[in-house]
Amino acid sequence: MTEENRHVLLRRRPQGRPTVEDFEIASAPIPEPGPGEVLLRGLYLSLDPYMRGRMSAAKSYAKPVEVGAVMEGRTVGEVLRSRHPAFHEGDFATGGYGWQLYSAVAGDKLLRIDPDEAPLSTALGVLGMPGLTAYIGLTRIGEPKAGETVVVSAASGAVGAVVGQLAKRMGARVVGVAGGSAKCRYIEKDLGFDGSIDHHGGELEAALDRACPKGIDVYWENVGGAVQKAVFPRLNDFARMVMCGMISEYNSLDHEPGPNLWSVVRKRLRIEGFIVSDAGERMGEYRQMAAPLLRSGALKYREDFVDGLEKAPQAFIGLLEGKNFGKLIVRLAPDPTQKG
Amino acid sequence: MTEENRHVLLRRRPQGRPTVEDFEIASAPIPEPGPGEVLLRGLYLSLDPYMRGRMSAAKSYAKPVEVGAVMEGRTVGEVLRSRHPAFHEGDFATGGYGWQLYSAVAGDKLLRIDPDEAPLSTALGVLGMPGLTAYIGLTRIGEPKAGETVVVSAASGAVGAVVGQLAKRMGARVVGVAGGSAKCRYIEKDLGFDGSIDHHGGELEAALDRACPKGIDVYWENVGGAVQKAVFPRLNDFARMVMCGMISEYNSLDHEPGPNLWSVVRKRLRIEGFIVSDAGERMGEYRQMAAPLLRSGALKYREDFVDGLEKAPQAFIGLLEGKNFGKLIVRLAPDPTQKG
Repeated sequence: MTEENRHVLLRRRPQGRPTVEDFEIASAPIPEPGPGEVLLRGLYLSLDPYMRGRMSAAKSYAKPVEVGAVMEGRTVGEVLRSRHPAFHEGDFATGGYGWQLYSAVAGDKLLRIDPDEAPLSTALGVLGMPGLTAYIGLTRIGEPKAGETVVVSAASGAVGAVVGQLAKRMGARVVGVAGGSAKCRYIEKDLGFDGSIDHHGGELEAALDRACPKGIDVYWENVGGAVQKAVFPRLNDFARMVMCGMISEYNSLDHEPGPNLWSVVRKRLRIEGFIVSDAGERMGEYRQMAAPLLRSGALKYREDFVDGLEKAPQAFIGLLEGKNFGKLIVRLAPDPTQKG
Repeated sequence: MTEENRHVLLRRRPQGRPTVEDFEIASAPIPEPGPGEVLLRGLYLSLDPYMRGRMSAAKSYAKPVEVGAVMEGRTVGEVLRSRHPAFHEGDFATGGYGWQLYSAVAGDKLLRIDPDEAPLSTALGVLGMPGLTAYIGLTRIGEPKAGETVVVSAASGAVGAVVGQLAKRMGARVVGVAGGSAKCRYIEKDLGFDGSIDHHGGELEAALDRACPKGIDVYWENVGGAVQKAVFPRLNDFARMVMCGMISEYNSLDHEPGPNLWSVVRKRLRIEGFIVSDAGERMGEYRQMAAPLLRSGALKYREDFVDGLEKAPQAFIGLLEGKNFGKLIVRLAPDPTQKG
């Protein structure tokens, strides 16, 4: 146990692509838990594309992080001291307590996790918000039917990998779009997608035509930009476009126009956005469904670890460029449940 | 009874805005009804914006009218002779039998209408496809809740007028967008909308801000173009955009880009298109709900009549320019149920 807390502050609002100078790593005293609070030592910190929005003052679905404040983020930690009846020293819990090593947080805002159910880090990815995102978007908006074609963008990412695997379980034919041949191989060979398209490979339109000879019934939108432009005209009548994110836009200072919406009438399309935090209460239901699949090997996942809090800014910048391969997680301290 | 049939043929495909030269009025023999068919004399012909799509060879949700063929359209007619057990001479029926004075059509494709229930012409507007369109779009996609703000474009038109009145009945605050002060007065004073905006008046953005101080929860899209552009950024979180049509685009040879879809995620918007003919089986349910409202005066409507089949092309061209005021209907012959 180090003697002081360390945290990553937002030093200034990034203009376009963030740089490491937009962040500041600082020291602070280890906080004292107040009544009802729990002192946690962070083990894992999740880095996710939505964080780019929190760094900006532009209107969004959540308040921005203030300049000088600790960056927001979800973590898994170990309880060091508890003043909340539901938590005890040595418990593990997940919650949104930011880019820092220690935090004192209200026990009511934490979810206890059982290390015997699945590795602790999965609470940030396949069994956490990214997995729940996939589940909510597919069951509430996408609703793929047997034999339909589902296209998933950012398909090797934390959300996309679960989307594709769940859509396969719902009987759909799944084609993933990913950056680079290693990721494409992974989604086909390891995750069992029916096809893959490398968006670095160019000629997206022709590749989509080849991979989706019957058109596209569900498009899982994680990226926007060129992929959206190529997919949109290939949507079938009654197709659903699940708007989960548009990572290609997060660094943009102004947004390019989108598709003309006449085809929404003509093809009876449904385009719908959602934010997983609106449906956080379904986490228990999701974990109950997904954890057994994980343990049996039917639901696969991949994690991309970075070691040390001070690496978080650079790793986050890489995330926006697609440099990670699997769920990007910062290891804050050794995981006592992992051997070796 | 004239001695010959007359009909309007599509002479050639319009390029952009249709002209009267794109149509040809021709004579033909009065058809003989075959087995199961009914010979109808047309009384009323409906003119609707969707017909512009049928004149074009561009891919759409329905097959185009062939060059040289009779223009498609819905009519109300009187049965002159029946070879179908459900119809008798003197009955009235509605169906899609085109821009012509006489037709022999399968009785199974006709809906008998009762002149005591409502004036016959209403089967083409407030109690017909336009009314059903409003009902389907509001109940299946828009779902306005009490206190929400609904903006209806083309608000004095056949669809818009019903949308606004039904949304009011669902407890919403309704603002209509229409062209010209007479139409605006009509939707406020006669139809009881809470506000109106004249899109000829310019400064749509400022007018929307004044009329919708709490933003927009449901946008009924009939028009596209400048109105869509002004409404889109004013949609509230969780707003629904009911894509019914985009009349401003129907004459366009190429479509301008639409809005960037990032706000669909950020605001959790739902944008959904529909075509009333997909839900034609709900006509009975709709008429059962709406006809009593019509008779009691709770559901108001306005019809804009043009006399004579030969006026149909010019009237249709005017419709695309918003020249009609109320449901545009061509009188083909005197209505025997109307006195004077």
